[in-house]
Amino acid sequence: MPEQQFDPESILPGWAKEFADGKKGVPFNGRERMKLAIELSRLNIVHGTGGPFGAAVFELATGKLVSVGLNLAVRSSCSHAHAEMVAIAIAQHAVSSYTLCRPGERGYELASSCEPCAMCFGAIIWSGVNRVVCGASTADACNAGFDEGPKPALWVKELERRGIEVETGVLQSEARNVLEYYSGNGGIIYNAR
Amino acid sequence: MPEQQFDPESILPGWAKEFADGKKGVPFNGRERMKLAIELSRLNIVHGTGGPFGAAVFELATGKLVSVGLNLAVRSSCSHAHAEMVAIAIAQHAVSSYTLCRPGERGYELASSCEPCAMCFGAIIWSGVNRVVCGASTADACNAGFDEGPKPALWVKELERRGIEVETGVLQSEARNVLEYYSGNGGIIYNAR
Repeated sequence: MPEQQFDPESILPGWAKEFADGKKGVPFNGRERMKLAIELSRLNIVHGTGGPFGAAVFELATGKLVSVGLNLAVRSSCSHAHAEMVAIAIAQHAVSSYTLCRPGERGYELASSCEPCAMCFGAIIWSGVNRVVCGASTADACNAGFDEGPKPALWVKELERRGIEVETGVLQSEARNVLEYYSGNGGIIYNAR
Repeated sequence: MPEQQFDPESILPGWAKEFADGKKGVPFNGRERMKLAIELSRLNIVHGTGGPFGAAVFELATGKLVSVGLNLAVRSSCSHAHAEMVAIAIAQHAVSSYTLCRPGERGYELASSCEPCAMCFGAIIWSGVNRVVCGASTADACNAGFDEGPKPALWVKELERRGIEVETGVLQSEARNVLEYYSGNGGIIYNAR
């Protein structure tokens, strides 16, 4: 029996795949990367494909987009399918490696419209990304009704201790607006225990 | 453009898919569930398909096997592909839901040959499993050279607080033996930062 091919990109809805394909090869500067992550979080609501979270992976040396991610947990029947997880999996598949770490090179940045939950925090460590940039804060997510889970209080320091640069609060109010819009309009807040 | 179908089972090597298919429908009692998880961790080394970690999801009411998981990170170019993550994703796909939580029913158990890393700990919370059983300890994994990441010291209490029953140290020495065999024979210990 021939083995199937595992392709994490198959989790993306058609609109997101087209959106990403249309932006590949274009360099994004620092703030533009976060703008893209926030735009993905907004479009995920507009298209009705999931929760208000978006993420993307970029090459640090060139600013080129490598992958996008969205919260697709409900649609894909997979609670792992948070925006950061999806973006990381597709980026690793694109470079054919379980790690985005490139010793001696500038490597990769993950831009996420919101600070990571407990799962994504752990996943960031194993991903090999060199830099993480976050928009909305854990408190913003919490205020919108989301549960980020039991993440270490000093999660930024834990990442930095492992050589991962972290910048939080980038375009925070724009990112928070999407969360507030979603929760204010009756979006599904799932699996809160 | 038609959308692709996301199938987390496509990550499994052929031998694991056949192994799981051959055991579906058979009830497993408590200890047999852990034996299966440990057997998967051993077979993953024997087949050269990944690291020494195995997991499986069972229906609590019947003991029936729902899914299996293995550490497939290197082979699948995906750092998320820890045994618990794979088993959870395939189980959720099997029940067509982003959560294994079944209010008013006994739900599902995750048996893992080793205590979870920081990422899998978070993923267990979002998975909806009712019960988690672990073989080898975090210290056993650490002694074999693996890094479990910054998990809360009171991780068992954090899961219990969210209604997830936890049992650790089940067939611990058998589970530890597989870790020791792997590290003693030069198995790849990847991505230790």
